[in-house]
Amino acid sequence: MRNYTQSRFSKDDAALLLIDHQSGIMQLVHDYSPAEFRSNVLALGKIGKVFDLPVILSSSYETGPNGPIIPELLAMYPQAPVIRRPGQISAWDNEEFVAAVEATGRRKLIMAGVTTDVCLAFPAMQAAAAGYEVYGVIDASGAHDFATQSMAVQRLVMHGVTPVTWLMVAAELQRDWRNKTAEGTGKLFHEHLLNYGMLIDNHMALTGGQQ
Amino acid sequence: MRNYTQSRFSKDDAALLLIDHQSGIMQLVHDYSPAEFRSNVLALGKIGKVFDLPVILSSSYETGPNGPIIPELLAMYPQAPVIRRPGQISAWDNEEFVAAVEATGRRKLIMAGVTTDVCLAFPAMQAAAAGYEVYGVIDASGAHDFATQSMAVQRLVMHGVTPVTWLMVAAELQRDWRNKTAEGTGKLFHEHLLNYGMLIDNHMALTGGQQ
Amino acid sequence: MRNYTQSRFSKDDAALLLIDHQSGIMQLVHDYSPAEFRSNVLALGKIGKVFDLPVILSSSYETGPNGPIIPELLAMYPQAPVIRRPGQISAWDNEEFVAAVEATGRRKLIMAGVTTDVCLAFPAMQAAAAGYEVYGVIDASGAHDFATQSMAVQRLVMHGVTPVTWLMVAAELQRDWRNKTAEGTGKLFHEHLLNYGMLIDNHMALTGGQQ
Amino acid sequence: MRNYTQSRFSKDDAALLLIDHQSGIMQLVHDYSPAEFRSNVLALGKIGKVFDLPVILSSSYETGPNGPIIPELLAMYPQAPVIRRPGQISAWDNEEFVAAVEATGRRKLIMAGVTTDVCLAFPAMQAAAAGYEVYGVIDASGAHDFATQSMAVQRLVMHGVTPVTWLMVAAELQRDWRNKTAEGTGKLFHEHLLNYGMLIDNHMALTGGQQ
Amino acid sequence: MRNYTQSRFSKDDAALLLIDHQSGIMQLVHDYSPAEFRSNVLALGKIGKVFDLPVILSSSYETGPNGPIIPELLAMYPQAPVIRRPGQISAWDNEEFVAAVEATGRRKLIMAGVTTDVCLAFPAMQAAAAGYEVYGVIDASGAHDFATQSMAVQRLVMHGVTPVTWLMVAAELQRDWRNKTAEGTGKLFHEHLLNYGMLIDNHMALTGGQQ
Amino acid sequence: MRNYTQSRFSKDDAALLLIDHQSGIMQLVHDYSPAEFRSNVLALGKIGKVFDLPVILSSSYETGPNGPIIPELLAMYPQAPVIRRPGQISAWDNEEFVAAVEATGRRKLIMAGVTTDVCLAFPAMQAAAAGYEVYGVIDASGAHDFATQSMAVQRLVMHGVTPVTWLMVAAELQRDWRNKTAEGTGKLFHEHLLNYGMLIDNHMALTGGQQ
Amino acid sequence: MRNYTQSRFSKDDAALLLIDHQSGIMQLVHDYSPAEFRSNVLALGKIGKVFDLPVILSSSYETGPNGPIIPELLAMYPQAPVIRRPGQISAWDNEEFVAAVEATGRRKLIMAGVTTDVCLAFPAMQAAAAGYEVYGVIDASGAHDFATQSMAVQRLVMHGVTPVTWLMVAAELQRDWRNKTAEGTGKLFHEHLLNYGMLIDNHMALTGGQQ
Amino acid sequence: MRNYTQSRFSKDDAALLLIDHQSGIMQLVHDYSPAEFRSNVLALGKIGKVFDLPVILSSSYETGPNGPIIPELLAMYPQAPVIRRPGQISAWDNEEFVAAVEATGRRKLIMAGVTTDVCLAFPAMQAAAAGYEVYGVIDASGAHDFATQSMAVQRLVMHGVTPVTWLMVAAELQRDWRNKTAEGTGKLFHEHLLNYGMLIDNHMALTGGQQ
Repeated sequence: MRNYTQSRFSKDDAALLLIDHQSGIMQLVHDYSPAEFRSNVLALGKIGKVFDLPVILSSSYETGPNGPIIPELLAMYPQAPVIRRPGQISAWDNEEFVAAVEATGRRKLIMAGVTTDVCLAFPAMQAAAAGYEVYGVIDASGAHDFATQSMAVQRLVMHGVTPVTWLMVAAELQRDWRNKTAEGTGKLFHEHLLNYGMLIDNHMALTGGQQ
Repeated sequence: MRNYTQSRFSKDDAALLLIDHQSGIMQLVHDYSPAEFRSNVLALGKIGKVFDLPVILSSSYETGPNGPIIPELLAMYPQAPVIRRPGQISAWDNEEFVAAVEATGRRKLIMAGVTTDVCLAFPAMQAAAAGYEVYGVIDASGAHDFATQSMAVQRLVMHGVTPVTWLMVAAELQRDWRNKTAEGTGKLFHEHLLNYGMLIDNHMALTGGQQ
Repeated sequence: MRNYTQSRFSKDDAALLLIDHQSGIMQLVHDYSPAEFRSNVLALGKIGKVFDLPVILSSSYETGPNGPIIPELLAMYPQAPVIRRPGQISAWDNEEFVAAVEATGRRKLIMAGVTTDVCLAFPAMQAAAAGYEVYGVIDASGAHDFATQSMAVQRLVMHGVTPVTWLMVAAELQRDWRNKTAEGTGKLFHEHLLNYGMLIDNHMALTGGQQ
Repeated sequence: MRNYTQSRFSKDDAALLLIDHQSGIMQLVHDYSPAEFRSNVLALGKIGKVFDLPVILSSSYETGPNGPIIPELLAMYPQAPVIRRPGQISAWDNEEFVAAVEATGRRKLIMAGVTTDVCLAFPAMQAAAAGYEVYGVIDASGAHDFATQSMAVQRLVMHGVTPVTWLMVAAELQRDWRNKTAEGTGKLFHEHLLNYGMLIDNHMALTGGQQ
Repeated sequence: MRNYTQSRFSKDDAALLLIDHQSGIMQLVHDYSPAEFRSNVLALGKIGKVFDLPVILSSSYETGPNGPIIPELLAMYPQAPVIRRPGQISAWDNEEFVAAVEATGRRKLIMAGVTTDVCLAFPAMQAAAAGYEVYGVIDASGAHDFATQSMAVQRLVMHGVTPVTWLMVAAELQRDWRNKTAEGTGKLFHEHLLNYGMLIDNHMALTGGQQ
Repeated sequence: MRNYTQSRFSKDDAALLLIDHQSGIMQLVHDYSPAEFRSNVLALGKIGKVFDLPVILSSSYETGPNGPIIPELLAMYPQAPVIRRPGQISAWDNEEFVAAVEATGRRKLIMAGVTTDVCLAFPAMQAAAAGYEVYGVIDASGAHDFATQSMAVQRLVMHGVTPVTWLMVAAELQRDWRNKTAEGTGKLFHEHLLNYGMLIDNHMALTGGQQ
Repeated sequence: MRNYTQSRFSKDDAALLLIDHQSGIMQLVHDYSPAEFRSNVLALGKIGKVFDLPVILSSSYETGPNGPIIPELLAMYPQAPVIRRPGQISAWDNEEFVAAVEATGRRKLIMAGVTTDVCLAFPAMQAAAAGYEVYGVIDASGAHDFATQSMAVQRLVMHGVTPVTWLMVAAELQRDWRNKTAEGTGKLFHEHLLNYGMLIDNHMALTGGQQ
Repeated sequence: MRNYTQSRFSKDDAALLLIDHQSGIMQLVHDYSPAEFRSNVLALGKIGKVFDLPVILSSSYETGPNGPIIPELLAMYPQAPVIRRPGQISAWDNEEFVAAVEATGRRKLIMAGVTTDVCLAFPAMQAAAAGYEVYGVIDASGAHDFATQSMAVQRLVMHGVTPVTWLMVAAELQRDWRNKTAEGTGKLFHEHLLNYGMLIDNHMALTGGQQ
C-alpha cells in the first residue's frame, strides 16, 4: 500500500516533464473538448513556473505532420531543455531525455503527454521501472475517447504510476496558502479553475480587493 | 419559411447584446464545461471588436450575489453602454436598454445571455415581437443542463428567434476571407476555435509564416 | 409566429395545474435523478404560493398502485381543489377538472404532469385546443428516458403548447425584483436553484446579511 | 396548429402498421438496448390485440439477409395480412400494402418500422401526403444512433407525422380505466412498463389482489 | 406541410454537392468519431457514383491550413467540377459554384459540408432561398459537439432545408431493390452500413452466395 | 494474482444466490433501463435451472415497502430455500442464510443483489472473508447511477470479489457447446441475449431449423 | 486482500469528518447536479446524528471566496468542533484537526470533502498512512467532471482508502433494522433515498401507517 | 508491481491471436459504433502484417449463426492457422489452439476476441495462468455496453492481463520511427488513426510529399 505522507512531492523534489504537446498531434485528443484540454495543458505548464520546478519539454518530428510544440508552452520555458527526438516514440528511449531528467536531481516526476495511452504511458512506466516516483497528469494528457483514457489509466496503475489532475498537482505543491507561492497559485486558479476564479472576482468586487 | 439570402446580417446592420455574463450567475452554467463556456463568451465578445459592431452590455444586481460582469468583457468595451438594471429580469423590460438598442439604428440583433432560458430568452422573444430579427447565440448562453438548453431553444424557435453559435456569427459576418476583417477573424479562430488555431500553427511552421 | 410581449403570463392571469405527482407513478421518472426531479416539482409547487396563483391538483387511483399525491404538495395547498379522477387518464377528460380550471377565470395555464408524454401531454394539448395558452413545465414532468422527453416536447410544440422550466416560470412571474414577491422568489431560489442559493449565502456572509 | 381534441384516435378509427421488424434488420438498431427495443416492439404489437385494431404486417426479403419477422409478432397475428414486398423499400410503394390499409377503412395510422429514418419515415410521410393522420411510434422504431433518431423525427414533423411512444398510444386508446379494455391494458403495463408492473405487484401483495 | 410523395428526389432530378471535406478542417469534427465520420462521408460520396448523379466538389484555401480535399473523394470524381473558392465562406456566394449547380439542370440538391453549422448551413439556406429543394446530409457533415449539430439542424429546418442521413439518401434513390442500381447499393451497404454488411456475409456463407 | 484455470467454477461446484430482487426495492435501480435490468435478472435466474445449481433466494421485509420477490424468480424455484430476513441488511448476517449456503456444499458462490453497493456488496465481501470464492453478477445487480456501480465494483475488487456479467456466468458454466446443457443455454441466449437470439432465428429460417 | 467481516465499522468505532462543504467551493462540483449533490451531503451529515457519531467539521478561508460552511451542516452540529484552517489545503496538515480526530478515540474514519481529488484525497490518504481505516464517501464529495472523480477514486484505492456512498455508510451502520436507530435511518431514507421514501409513503397510505 | 522496461514486447517475441471476429457474433458489439469497431479490428489485424508477427485465428460454429470470420481478416492471413473450434467457448480449452500458440515459440501474447467479457477474457486469463504475458486489446474486442467493457477489464486486471489499445500495440512494436517497419506503421496510421492520417495528407500536400 502506498504511503501518501511519506511520498508526497514538493517543489523541492519534483520535476515537470511535458511530452509532445504539438499542434498536430493535439488534433487526436477527443476525450476533452479543445478549450478544456488546452486550458488543462497550460495550467500544468504554469505550475512549473509558479513553483520553479525543473521543466523538460520533448517533441517528435516537429517538421513533419506532428507540428511544433504549442507556442504558449515554448514561450513559458525559453531556457528549458527541449529534447527533439529523432525517432523514438517513448521519450524515455531517448538517452538525452533520460539524462536531462537525471540532471535535475529530482526523483519525483510529474509527467503529461499529448496522448495518455502512448506519449505519457510509455515513458511513465519506464520511469517507474527505473525507480522514480511517477505521477501521470491525466487531464493534461488526451485520448481518442473516454474508454481509451480509462484503459490507459488502468495500465498506468498496474505499473505503479499514480494518476493525478493538474489541480491535484497544484494543491499538493502549494500545500499551505501561507506559503509564498500563494499569489502565483491564486493567479493560476483564477485563470484555469474558472469557477473558482469567478468566486475570487465576486469576492474582490465586494471587499474592494483585499482578500 | 425564412429566406436566408435576404435576411443574413452583416457588420453594417447588426448589433451585439451581451446580457448578464456576471461572475456570480455564471456559476449556474452546467451544460458546458467552465473552460468551454468562458471561451465561447469571450469569442463572441471579440466578434464585436473585429467587426466593429455596436455593443451593449447589461447586468443586474452587480453588488449582490450576481457579481460583476466578467472583467474580460468589460475591458474589451470600455466605451460601450453598460445598462445596469435596477430590478428587471428581462433586459428588454428596461427602457434604457431598449433605447440603447434603438440608438444603434440596427435591426438585426445578435444576443447572448448568461442563461439561455431566462437571460437570453425573455429579451430575445421581446425583441422579435418588436420586429427585430433576433439571433440567439446558444453556446455563449448557458443552462442548468442539456435538457434545459434544448427546451429553451425550442421556445426561442417558436417565437421566431434563430439559434446560432458564435462560430456561425463570425463566419456570417466575415463572409469572404478577402474582406479586410480577415486578420481579426483569423486571430479569433486561432484563440477560440482551437483545433483550427493549431492547423494555422502547423501551417505557419512549415511555410515560414506566409499563408 | 408567437408574440411573447403580448402573451406573457403574470400572477394575475395564470393558474397552476399539478397532475398526478403521486408517490407510485413518480417511480417511472428516469430522465432526472430522483433528488433533482423532486426538487423541480417542489419548486414549481412553491411558485403557486409565492405568486398566490390559483392551484389545482389532480390524481388518479390513489388507493391503487399509483399511490397518494406526494405529501409536500398536499401540505402546501390544503385548500386547493384536488380532483381525484375515477378513471380518466387525461385530466382534461374529467369534467370536474375542466370546471375547476374555468372557475379560476384564468386563460393561461402553467401545467406539469408526472409523465411528460401522457399525464402532461394529453390535458395540455386539450387545453390548447380549447383556446387556453398552455405552458408545459418539462423539468417538473418526468419521462422514461431522455428520448421520450424529447419526443413528447416535439408533440407538445406541434399542438401549440410552450415548453418551459420551473425557473422560466418563476422569472416570468417575478419579472422585476422590485415587485413585492421578491422575498418569496429569493427564498425559492435559495432552496431550489441551489448554486444561486449558495451565491446568496456567500454574499450574506460577507455583507452581514444586507443584500 | 393541430387540435388534439378533434384528432385523437380511438380503437374505432385507428389501424396499426408494423413494418420490417425482422430478425436480420433489427441488428441495425443501436439507439435502444436490445432488451429495451424488443420490449417496446412487443408492447406495441400487443396494443393491437388489446384494442382489437386492424393490424398489417410487412416485410422485405425475408429469405435474404433481412431475415424473418420476429416470431412473437407473427404469432400474435396469425390472421393479419403480411405484405411481403418484392423489392420496394417503402411499404407505401407497394400497392398491396396501400390496399390493405385502405381496406381497414381507418384514417388514423399508428405506424412503426424497424428503422425510424427509412422503414418508418418513407411510408409515414407518404401516408400523411395521402391524407391519413399518421402517428410514428418512435420507440418501437430503431436507429443507428441517437442523432439519427433525432433527425428522422425532425423530418417526420416537417411532413406532418406526429411522433409518439407505445405508452402514449396505449394511454390514448385506453383513455379511461373504466373502459372494458382496462384489464388488457393493465396486463400490458405489467409486462412492458416494468416499474409500473412492480407497483401493481406490490399493491396486490398488500391488498390480497383486489385493486 | 411538406408532401413527401410529390417531392421525393430520384437519380434523375437530384445533384450531389460535397463541400469542404478537406483534411485540415475535418479535424474540427467532434460529434462523430473519426472512423464513423469518414465512413459516412465516403458512403455519401459513393452514392453519387452508384446513381450517376451530377456531383460538384468545392473547397477553400487548400494550400493553407484547411488542407486538400480528402483523396478518396477526389479519386472518385476525377471529372467532377471542383470549385476552389478564393475566399467565400459560403460556397453559394461563389458564382462559379452556383453556375455549376445550375448547369446540372437539377432542382433537388443533396448537400453535405464539413461543418453543419457553417459549410453546410450557409449554402443550403441560400439554395433553399433560391428555390431549390435542399436536403442536408447531417451525418456526413460534422460539428464541434452534439449541441452544435442540434442547433444547426434547427436553423436548417427553420429555413426549409430537410435534414437527412446518407442512408436515407441511398434508400430514397434506390427506392426498389429491383431497380438496376441494386448491386451498387448493396455493395455500398456492405461497405458502410456495416452491420447490414455482416448480415449479407452471413447469408452468403450459408447459401453459397446466391441471395 | 488470480489463476483463472485453477479457479473457474462449474455446475458441480457453484451455487447461485439471489438477494432482494423485490418489486419495491427494484424501483431504486437507475443504472440500467427497467427492461434491461429485468432481462438480466431473469437470465441469471434461468442459469440456475439450466445448470441445475443449488439456488438460494433471500428477501427482507416483504410485507413492508420492499415488496415481494418478483414473481418470475419465485415461480422458477418453488423448492428453493427462501430466506426471509427479519431485519438484517446483509444476508450474510442471517445465520439461516449462511447455513443454507453451507448446506449446498459448494465453495464458489455466484451472487447478485438488487443493489450492488449494499444488497450484493455486504454479503459478497463477507462470503469472501469466510473463504468462499465469490463472483458478483454486476448487471443483475442495480445501482442508483453509473458512478455508484463503478465505486461498488471497486470496493468488491478490493475485497477479492470478482465482478462478472450473467453472460460470463453462462459461458463459464457451459464451457463447451457439446456439453449436454447446450440446448438450455441456447434457449437462454435466444431469450435474453437478444441479438444472438435473432441470429439463431435467421439461421433457422434459412436452414429449416437444423443448426 | 481486505477482510470485510473483521473490518466493518459500527456506530461505536467510527467518526465522521466533513471537510470544506462551503457555499463558495461547492460551485466547483460538476459531476453531480446541484440538487443531487446537496442531498447527498445532507444525507451524510444526518447519518452522524442518527448514529450519534463523533463529527468534526473543517473549513478553509471562510471569509474569502470559499464562503461559509453550508448552513444546514452547521445547524446540525452546533457542538461539533469546527476546525477553521488558517491555510493548510489538507485538513490533515492541521494539527488541531488531527488532534480532534484522535480525541474521538475512533480508528475508523468516514470522510467526505467538497472535492474528491483534493479536499477528500489528501487527508484521506494521510489518515490511511497514519494507520486509520479510511472510508471516502465519494457521492458526498464532488469533482470537476466524471473523469476527475474516476481518477481520484483510483488514487484513493492505491493508497488503501475504501470508496463508499452515503447509502453504504448508513446501511453498514444500521446493519439490522431491529436495531434502535431504525427509525432515524428510515427517516433518512425517506428524505434522501427518495424512491425508497415514496415506497414508504405508498405503503403507509395503504396500511394506514403501520409498517 | 510490473516492470514495463523489462516486459515490453517486440516483433521478435510476440504473437497475435484473433478470436471469433465472425460476422454473426460481431452484431453483439454495442460499445463502439460499427464503423469504429471494424476499423479497430482491421487495424489490429494489419499490425500482424506490418511486424510480421505469428498470427493465429480462431472461430466457433462458422456454419451456424455465428457466421464466417470477417473476410478482410481471412484475406490478410491466408497461411495462418485458423482453429475452428468444435464446441469450446474458450479458445484456450482447445488443445489445437494452445498447440498453435506454443508452436510460435512466443511468450507474449497480444489477444483480441469479439466480446471482451467472454471470447477474450477466458483464453486471456488462461494464458496468463499458463505463464504467458498477455495483452488484451480492448478496443478490438467488443461488449454489450460500456459497463460490461469496464467490468471485463477489471476482471482481466485481477488476473494479470494488461489492457491495451491497438494503437498502444502498434506504437510499442514500432518503438522508433527509424526502424524499418516505419513505412508500414505510417500507412496503418494513415488508414486507421484517421485524424493522424489527415495530418499526413496535409503535410504532404504542402511539402510535395517528402516528409
